[in-house]
Amino acid sequence: MAKRAPVVNSAKPQLEMPVSPRVAIEGITPEVDGGRFPAKRAVGETVVVEADVFAEGHDEVSCVLRYRQAVGGDWTEAPMSPLVNDRWRGEFPVTELGRYQYGVQAWADPYKSWARDLSKRLEAGQDVSVDRLRGAAMVEATGRRLRSGTASRRLLEGARAIRSGPIFSLPEVAKGVLDLMQQHADRGVVTTSRELEVVVEPERTRFSAWYELFPRSWGSGGKHGTFKDVEARLEYVAGMGFDVLYLAPIHPIGRTHRKGRNNSLQAGPKDPGSPWAIGAREGGHKSIHPELGTLADFKHLVQSARKRGLEIALDIALQCSPDHPYLREHPEWFARRPDGSIQYAENPPKKYEDIYPFDFETEHWRELWQELLSIFVFWMDQGVRTFRVDNPHTKPLHFWEWLIAEVKQRQPDVVFLAEAFTRPKIMYRLAKLGFSQSYTYFAWRNSSWELREYFTELTQTPVREFFRPSLWPNTPDILTEYLQAGGRPAFIARLVLAATLGASYGIYGPAFELCENQAREQGSEEYLDSEKYQLRSWDLERPDSLRELITLVNHIRQDNPALQGDHSLRFHAIDNDQLVAYSKSTPDRSNVIVSVVNMDPHHTHSGWLTLSLAELGIDPDQPFQAHDLLSGARYFWQGPRNYVELDPRAIPAHILQLRRRVRREHDFEYFL
Amino acid sequence: MAKRAPVVNSAKPQLEMPVSPRVAIEGITPEVDGGRFPAKRAVGETVVVEADVFAEGHDEVSCVLRYRQAVGGDWTEAPMSPLVNDRWRGEFPVTELGRYQYGVQAWADPYKSWARDLSKRLEAGQDVSVDRLRGAAMVEATGRRLRSGTASRRLLEGARAIRSGPIFSLPEVAKGVLDLMQQHADRGVVTTSRELEVVVEPERTRFSAWYELFPRSWGSGGKHGTFKDVEARLEYVAGMGFDVLYLAPIHPIGRTHRKGRNNSLQAGPKDPGSPWAIGAREGGHKSIHPELGTLADFKHLVQSARKRGLEIALDIALQCSPDHPYLREHPEWFARRPDGSIQYAENPPKKYEDIYPFDFETEHWRELWQELLSIFVFWMDQGVRTFRVDNPHTKPLHFWEWLIAEVKQRQPDVVFLAEAFTRPKIMYRLAKLGFSQSYTYFAWRNSSWELREYFTELTQTPVREFFRPSLWPNTPDILTEYLQAGGRPAFIARLVLAATLGASYGIYGPAFELCENQAREQGSEEYLDSEKYQLRSWDLERPDSLRELITLVNHIRQDNPALQGDHSLRFHAIDNDQLVAYSKSTPDRSNVIVSVVNMDPHHTHSGWLTLSLAELGIDPDQPFQAHDLLSGARYFWQGPRNYVELDPRAIPAHILQLRRRVRREHDFEYFL
Repeated sequence: MAKRAPVVNSAKPQLEMPVSPRVAIEGITPEVDGGRFPAKRAVGETVVVEADVFAEGHDEVSCVLRYRQAVGGDWTEAPMSPLVNDRWRGEFPVTELGRYQYGVQAWADPYKSWARDLSKRLEAGQDVSVDRLRGAAMVEATGRRLRSGTASRRLLEGARAIRSGPIFSLPEVAKGVLDLMQQHADRGVVTTSRELEVVVEPERTRFSAWYELFPRSWGSGGKHGTFKDVEARLEYVAGMGFDVLYLAPIHPIGRTHRKGRNNSLQAGPKDPGSPWAIGAREGGHKSIHPELGTLADFKHLVQSARKRGLEIALDIALQCSPDHPYLREHPEWFARRPDGSIQYAENPPKKYEDIYPFDFETEHWRELWQELLSIFVFWMDQGVRTFRVDNPHTKPLHFWEWLIAEVKQRQPDVVFLAEAFTRPKIMYRLAKLGFSQSYTYFAWRNSSWELREYFTELTQTPVREFFRPSLWPNTPDILTEYLQAGGRPAFIARLVLAATLGASYGIYGPAFELCENQAREQGSEEYLDSEKYQLRSWDLERPDSLRELITLVNHIRQDNPALQGDHSLRFHAIDNDQLVAYSKSTPDRSNVIVSVVNMDPHHTHSGWLTLSLAELGIDPDQPFQAHDLLSGARYFWQGPRNYVELDPRAIPAHILQLRRRVRREHDFEYFL
Repeated sequence: MAKRAPVVNSAKPQLEMPVSPRVAIEGITPEVDGGRFPAKRAVGETVVVEADVFAEGHDEVSCVLRYRQAVGGDWTEAPMSPLVNDRWRGEFPVTELGRYQYGVQAWADPYKSWARDLSKRLEAGQDVSVDRLRGAAMVEATGRRLRSGTASRRLLEGARAIRSGPIFSLPEVAKGVLDLMQQHADRGVVTTSRELEVVVEPERTRFSAWYELFPRSWGSGGKHGTFKDVEARLEYVAGMGFDVLYLAPIHPIGRTHRKGRNNSLQAGPKDPGSPWAIGAREGGHKSIHPELGTLADFKHLVQSARKRGLEIALDIALQCSPDHPYLREHPEWFARRPDGSIQYAENPPKKYEDIYPFDFETEHWRELWQELLSIFVFWMDQGVRTFRVDNPHTKPLHFWEWLIAEVKQRQPDVVFLAEAFTRPKIMYRLAKLGFSQSYTYFAWRNSSWELREYFTELTQTPVREFFRPSLWPNTPDILTEYLQAGGRPAFIARLVLAATLGASYGIYGPAFELCENQAREQGSEEYLDSEKYQLRSWDLERPDSLRELITLVNHIRQDNPALQGDHSLRFHAIDNDQLVAYSKSTPDRSNVIVSVVNMDPHHTHSGWLTLSLAELGIDPDQPFQAHDLLSGARYFWQGPRNYVELDPRAIPAHILQLRRRVRREHDFEYFL
């Protein structure tokens, strides 16, 4: 096989023959926008890489997956195996935070072709004497190239046996050398795919339960809450099984144009204002609202929370109240209207005169961008590793790409959640350019058809390579009509949906567990007496609180690895549109969870569920157990079609763990 | 709008802020493998280009489609309009053969944002005095930049009117300037997409009907046919409405290992051999088999055919009989077995000792490749513009990419048909790298489900951008079991399917029109007494010939532009799996053809056809006419569900032209 077309082009200038490598590599997955953006994985996962690899004719090809952690570093090779239809698959583990590169390398494999042909010739009883010579020559050449060592010796022995050993042992000899030949053979002209990237983030980017609160409402006796008050109730949040405690903005709040209760334009003298109107004489984005406590209190809260398994997430809203020090110190960072006044935020005809946006394209953008980056770095220095970014879609997309890269270069364990309720393409782009998790349209998907369509798109299409959904049944801005009208059964249904459809989900509490469902007015999603504009006092011990149910649901999530990822999500048919059924499972099917939710908060619904048993690894000919982890009930089912009935006044959902093995007479001792 | 972030990066080396353009461009179509390969179009078509174009927040964006014919030439711009969901669409015509480049350019459009906001503010009754100043400044700046001319004057006038004209005329003035501002405004930092390519080929790459024959069988009285014999019967082929007359190889045929009748290993002394065993003492790929005539005869045939609207297609099989002059003159172009003999073709355990393949990776590959190219160029010099390439999938993929580019550079009107019956990925790759048309799996798709799946993939997925299917119910190698068993009704059904599912199709005749369906043996797709190995004498005037039906079908194709492309193909539901129904239509729906075929050659089948009326532009509340262009029958239908019945003993297919307008009482003169 020495006769190979050289890689260089002809020297004759009038004639350009592109001698590219023979093997084609196409359709690599994962690949986001042709490699423009990295795919995403969490630490400890494996990256499964597939590609179409083929050459002309009948020649066998071989290919390997190559990966490395640092650009310019050495590649590690992992094997790839053929599936069907010229598709190959390999995988590599990602054990460290940061970026990995990967790619596919392929080449025509003459020894593999020869060995395959040899066995066909032998089966057909053909004379293979000439073929033996060709195979022996290839093996011998490789053995000689290696010069010494076990491999070389074994290859040279193999070559001898192929050339002149007994014919009956030929197939075995030829096959026995195959592995060594694959490892050591001259690959000749290889095809190397483009280098792709995967960004590896902390495990909580894939699997997390968030709890959002307004610290100022956690005081006792109607007083303004403090970090110390929150710290005193950490057990309340951690005990329910949450991983992330997300605080509404904690900075000084502006006074000019301050909003009053229920978003009124005139604040009363005691109204605390919206925490998103950031900045006052006491400071801006790097300061703490004095009534919440000190920086030391905050750092103490971060550490105490972490001890209880809770990460503190800060809300970063890159905007200023009219009283923010930036306005005074850096007026050049804000746009001006033609009359010389500073441009307030607006979405015409709506005006938000209590908020000034930054002018990201100011002549002084370099200083501005650096300062905005320094806000994140400041809070990272206080121990924060999780940021929920407010309205990232109203800031330039390339600003975020730059900022997140800068932050990750300093601390690859920082997690960004994008609060972008906007058009789908922009939400996806924010995820591509670096946000670890993203809010979704989940809150407004209330029919089985909507849920199936939306979550199939998020989990079963290329979107899943870059977009990690975070499911929130409510937020301080979103009290859906479904929750308003449905009351407690609606809250439970949405909780179970969020926690089982999404490996990452969150609730805004205590409004959620206390089933707060009074809107400010008909047709509005704003809460009546919203915490955004006033202090609230919550009775956490109310007997009708969903606290215990939430605790149970979070424990089910922790106990069942199937629920800790989104890629295995599959919807199953059920003959009642008020019910939705779906499963998640581990790759080995050792843990399978089927959830069924009745989305009608007013009526009992029943239906026949048709499970795709093959996908769940269930034998249709054997009974299996569906163990409801919510109620404790155990159902004995067999075959794909089984009956389900859910009464919303009891509990509108099943979270069924399927157990393959049902105890039968075969299990009795005397059967053995 | 002078304040724009500059394009250059910061000078500070420790700080790299990538100030990329604000607007994102994603998901451009057509785009083949991220731009690695060109899309395909035929002369006279338009290229419809779509892209996702968006920026952060609420800012309006504008974008244009740019295209040009020559690399490095000037771009022409075409407008793009928003569809939904941030998707934009534009188009450009391709009027010349060769390659066009295209791409999308987009920018944030502050004037458009301003004009949109202004009307919202006015509707809300807000004071817009400050907004007027901002808008006027933008318009004035553009007017001043233009310095002089009508546009400048109109913009300066507009600026004045926006600043201080009467408020009631403001919306109109703002809107009136919009077009000028779009044309002339400083686009600032633009986003420019990657440059993509489309290769423009002759119209017959999209729409063609091929007729394949063995010239040697067209002699009279059992004599070896000649080019003159073929020329004498050109009217037979042209009269049926074919565009391409494709000849089995016309070169001298080898004698060594010549195959006899019915592929027997020993040829009799008079057996003519397979025309694919190319090369004898009389010459090789640039020579003509003496019994067919002279080169002058061939050139005359090419010209005569062209006068009748028939292009001659040559079959190019890059392989040699043992007697080919290349073996003697260039033994270095062939691989040798270890025993020194030349490597014959094989697909172990099958050996084809009458065929020697070229060694495309020989050390002398440059000379070999040039020689192979010169074969195509030789026949182009004789007037040939259409090549059917035999088994391209057994030659290196990059060889074809090079060869087709070389040919197209000389003559962009040359058409290549890939005869690659192989794995799908390789068939698609050959199309991507340059073959104009490709054989398909059509011959073996005989159920409605198979046809729907396969032709939806070919015409409604990105495959359609590069793969132009050519549908053949039979070839000299393929007499399907369906045709063997189904007889005449099967031939008719497959003819109608090929001619209406595919804008390009072909038949191997006269075997096809004479319904030749005797296989060599049970389970074989080889013809009994195949023309590949012997002369046949055909009675073209047989009364049971399908000649007239073929003529009718080809005329229907010529009369109905709907059938002249594949992208409009849609399948329609029908409640009998033995029937298949599909439509094609022109973009303006002025021509709509619905075909229904009974695929059971033995029984009459009926069913209820459910048409997607909206897609066909048919009003469900009005009757419409379904005019069967095969039988002449006219059916009066209304609504989506209509009855169809097809008796294979009469004719197993409808080709229905839908006519929207049925004459009713409203059409009577006295109604007017």
